[in-house]
Amino acid sequence: MPPKAAKAKNDNMLIGITVNKEDDFSGWYQQIVTKGEMLDYYDVSGCYIMRPPSYFVWEQIQEWFNIKIKKLGVKNAYFPMFVSSRVLEKEKDHVEGFAPEVAWVTKAGSSDLEEPVAIRPTSETVMYPYYAKWVRSHRDLPLKLNQWNSVVRWEFKHPQPFLRTREFLWQEGHTAHLTAKEAEDEVMAILDNYEKIYSELLAVPVIKGKKSEKEKFAGALFTTTVEGFIPSTGRGIQGATSHCLGQNFSKMFDISVEDPNGGADKLFAWQNSWGLSTRVIGVMTMTHSDNKGLVLPPRVAHTQAIIIPCGLTAKLAAEKRAAVMDASAAIEKALSEADVRVASDTRDTYSPGWKFSDAELRGIPLRIEVGPRDVEQGKIVAVRRDNGEKIVMDIADLATSVPELLETIQKDLFSKAKETFDKHVIKATTWDDFVKALNAGNLVLAPWSASIETEEWIKDNSARTVDPNNEADDKAPSMGAKTLCIPFEQPELAADAVCVTGSGKKADNWCLFGRSY
Amino acid sequence: MPPKAAKAKNDNMLIGITVNKEDDFSGWYQQIVTKGEMLDYYDVSGCYIMRPPSYFVWEQIQEWFNIKIKKLGVKNAYFPMFVSSRVLEKEKDHVEGFAPEVAWVTKAGSSDLEEPVAIRPTSETVMYPYYAKWVRSHRDLPLKLNQWNSVVRWEFKHPQPFLRTREFLWQEGHTAHLTAKEAEDEVMAILDNYEKIYSELLAVPVIKGKKSEKEKFAGALFTTTVEGFIPSTGRGIQGATSHCLGQNFSKMFDISVEDPNGGADKLFAWQNSWGLSTRVIGVMTMTHSDNKGLVLPPRVAHTQAIIIPCGLTAKLAAEKRAAVMDASAAIEKALSEADVRVASDTRDTYSPGWKFSDAELRGIPLRIEVGPRDVEQGKIVAVRRDNGEKIVMDIADLATSVPELLETIQKDLFSKAKETFDKHVIKATTWDDFVKALNAGNLVLAPWSASIETEEWIKDNSARTVDPNNEADDKAPSMGAKTLCIPFEQPELAADAVCVTGSGKKADNWCLFGRSY
Repeated sequence: MPPKAAKAKNDNMLIGITVNKEDDFSGWYQQIVTKGEMLDYYDVSGCYIMRPPSYFVWEQIQEWFNIKIKKLGVKNAYFPMFVSSRVLEKEKDHVEGFAPEVAWVTKAGSSDLEEPVAIRPTSETVMYPYYAKWVRSHRDLPLKLNQWNSVVRWEFKHPQPFLRTREFLWQEGHTAHLTAKEAEDEVMAILDNYEKIYSELLAVPVIKGKKSEKEKFAGALFTTTVEGFIPSTGRGIQGATSHCLGQNFSKMFDISVEDPNGGADKLFAWQNSWGLSTRVIGVMTMTHSDNKGLVLPPRVAHTQAIIIPCGLTAKLAAEKRAAVMDASAAIEKALSEADVRVASDTRDTYSPGWKFSDAELRGIPLRIEVGPRDVEQGKIVAVRRDNGEKIVMDIADLATSVPELLETIQKDLFSKAKETFDKHVIKATTWDDFVKALNAGNLVLAPWSASIETEEWIKDNSARTVDPNNEADDKAPSMGAKTLCIPFEQPELAADAVCVTGSGKKADNWCLFGRSY
Repeated sequence: MPPKAAKAKNDNMLIGITVNKEDDFSGWYQQIVTKGEMLDYYDVSGCYIMRPPSYFVWEQIQEWFNIKIKKLGVKNAYFPMFVSSRVLEKEKDHVEGFAPEVAWVTKAGSSDLEEPVAIRPTSETVMYPYYAKWVRSHRDLPLKLNQWNSVVRWEFKHPQPFLRTREFLWQEGHTAHLTAKEAEDEVMAILDNYEKIYSELLAVPVIKGKKSEKEKFAGALFTTTVEGFIPSTGRGIQGATSHCLGQNFSKMFDISVEDPNGGADKLFAWQNSWGLSTRVIGVMTMTHSDNKGLVLPPRVAHTQAIIIPCGLTAKLAAEKRAAVMDASAAIEKALSEADVRVASDTRDTYSPGWKFSDAELRGIPLRIEVGPRDVEQGKIVAVRRDNGEKIVMDIADLATSVPELLETIQKDLFSKAKETFDKHVIKATTWDDFVKALNAGNLVLAPWSASIETEEWIKDNSARTVDPNNEADDKAPSMGAKTLCIPFEQPELAADAVCVTGSGKKADNWCLFGRSY
């Protein structure tokens, strides 16, 4: 469907993206998601409508991830969205992390509730009283549940479609294990799956690592993460996190068993929680889309190829017109049978050129142009959405060549994004270089002497003062750099390497820093 | 896993269902769902935890229904859970139907919201302002969206697991069409699918029909329904509903297009909404389960067959024990490859008898006993959960015979339930017979002169006064009978048939009445 603004004005005129990604990223993104029909704005602030193309991406992720976690022995379940204040407040560090953003239901109809109930911001405290009840013996471990649900975090920061929304969809896995080793192995197995959702489904590169003490999940022993990067804003973005909660919650909620080896003390379970949200769709959209509109990776595109009959001029002979329409229908059938998600745009109220722009706006990975002369020669012209390349293909081979081309597009999207990402991860060993790289819109990999103090020092000292009289300065983010993660893949660290702050303290690791969403 | 109450007491002792379905239906049901691990009670009243076995049923329904609706051109999407009071209150009849049960968020963290937001009790008013925005021309019709979500209706009536809960999962489809005919066809196509979810997946019979004016959905033109029956309580239960909203909402929200045939007036869309909730799981559970525990139809059972090695006494020769264990493993592999959802219970801390009871409690459709002598003869003993029948089967044929047997169980469960259902639908043409049939725990099919007045008269006059001094009277429901539906399949109605109330008025139809959930 053409965008509505255009149609209201003139059914035969298409209004594409009217601002450039390079000039006004935020305005561009808003147009990409709305005109690409991924999302619409909603009359409750911070909430958005996920339209079919974006929900389709989410369904593809669900299907893929469900298979992976079921192989790990995880089962899906559903816990209530409401949580009593008594339970929510049981784990102190945890509730402190969430309390300011918790939405409270206080009324039903016109009556006040006796006791207000919170809407879950996450479900640790919703679930764990029941884990305590269900786990009575070591034979009940491991207990591995996951749910696909929505959570609410009533943030007051500026909302951003997919990236920061007051309600969002996610999955949250919660598992309890007998040993620390088993829990830790799972944390990493899940993180690997998150990395693959980004790289293999969404064609987005991420860096795996561990969060600093300051940035870890409220109540966790440690947090692992996949970190992404938005080149246009020079900002990092947390992609998904897999937490080892240790025995922190199990002690609070008494999730414990007798020692199977006959030890006298009861053993507290080792727990994990891990989540990936619809934020991934925002990261994917920002990464690939361009000034013509949305770009969807083929594996998650609701429509992978669109057939557009061309050259059907008024003076074209009737049998030639019929040949084009017949060929188009036959191609659609053949591709559909080859499991390509294919559609045809046979509307006669729009010109081919209009339809090309429309398909580009909506991010369809491949356009197949079927014209009278092509058909006579048994050919079509395929046009890639990602790079505009035109490829002449034999109609007879499409059931093989189109799926192959879609896979090529998928790989090329990832390679291109990876190249850009890699160029923007800059190593710095001095504070000057750190600030220079950061202000040039990069993530910075720097030797770091890990402590909350140095982390805060870096944040404070890398905050960029914006000159209100300098318009060019206007769009640069001014917040300080945070630690994004300590990457698992570490460059070699010199034995005498010191912290990038210049404190002279010995560096423990290379750490990834950046301005961040 | 064995039930926790049992384990707390003694790991080697199983406590099954301790009350009979016939004696204390409500206590029995509570034990069935909790000991069968379908659900657990939760500390916010009216909310329950869906554990993996019940969520698995829901996933099977989702998968089946998604295929059906996608064939009808419906796409999945996700709208926010919050709705502003201004929008909620736009359609008057509609909001009156829901207002007393609406949950309101009034606070975030410790701050009061400027404007409270409601949690959707259903999404007509959430969605339709956007339908108005998206539908600009007749070419945008039909618009067909569905979402899988949770809704909240803060009822103050006694909650009941799956049947009446304050938060529940459902799907809600919302479609807009150019013509009444197209909308009406879809209402019926969806209702047919609902009927099949009950009969083909859950093995539960239902009656399709139309709701009376009094019982139709708030704001609808007409409501169609599938109505079920719980024999143990003699009560009917609304299974799922498919509504034709007519142009009621489209006029309120201005979902309109110009006439494609050039007429001067704008045309308002014809709309439908249709929903099926996790209530279906309760109906299924009540219908099939017995005094040994849960009974799950094979098509929706998380585990369809469980292999239990037997006869492994202490004095059994090691090679014979090994033969049993090897055979069990081989059977599990063969069944799994034949797409049977199979598990083995090889725990050596429990006796076979204990494991039999445990599998019965959890509703696993088929138990496969593998003993030393059976293995020597290349046989196993299969025991059906539904009727206890023991069947000796050749190990070599299991990949074929087990799937066949599971289908037989599925069909037999439906046949048995259908026979019971049919016995409890009693035709009555006089008021005396009506009351007698109703009080004997039946649904009543009666000639009816349709009007809200007669409906209310029947309800008032069929309310059963309970004698507090008569204990036997205690369990009979005392509420009056409601119209459940006007069945689409109508027995012949005599030309001079009069309303069952005895008013002497000419009857319009046969109508299904019953005490109802």
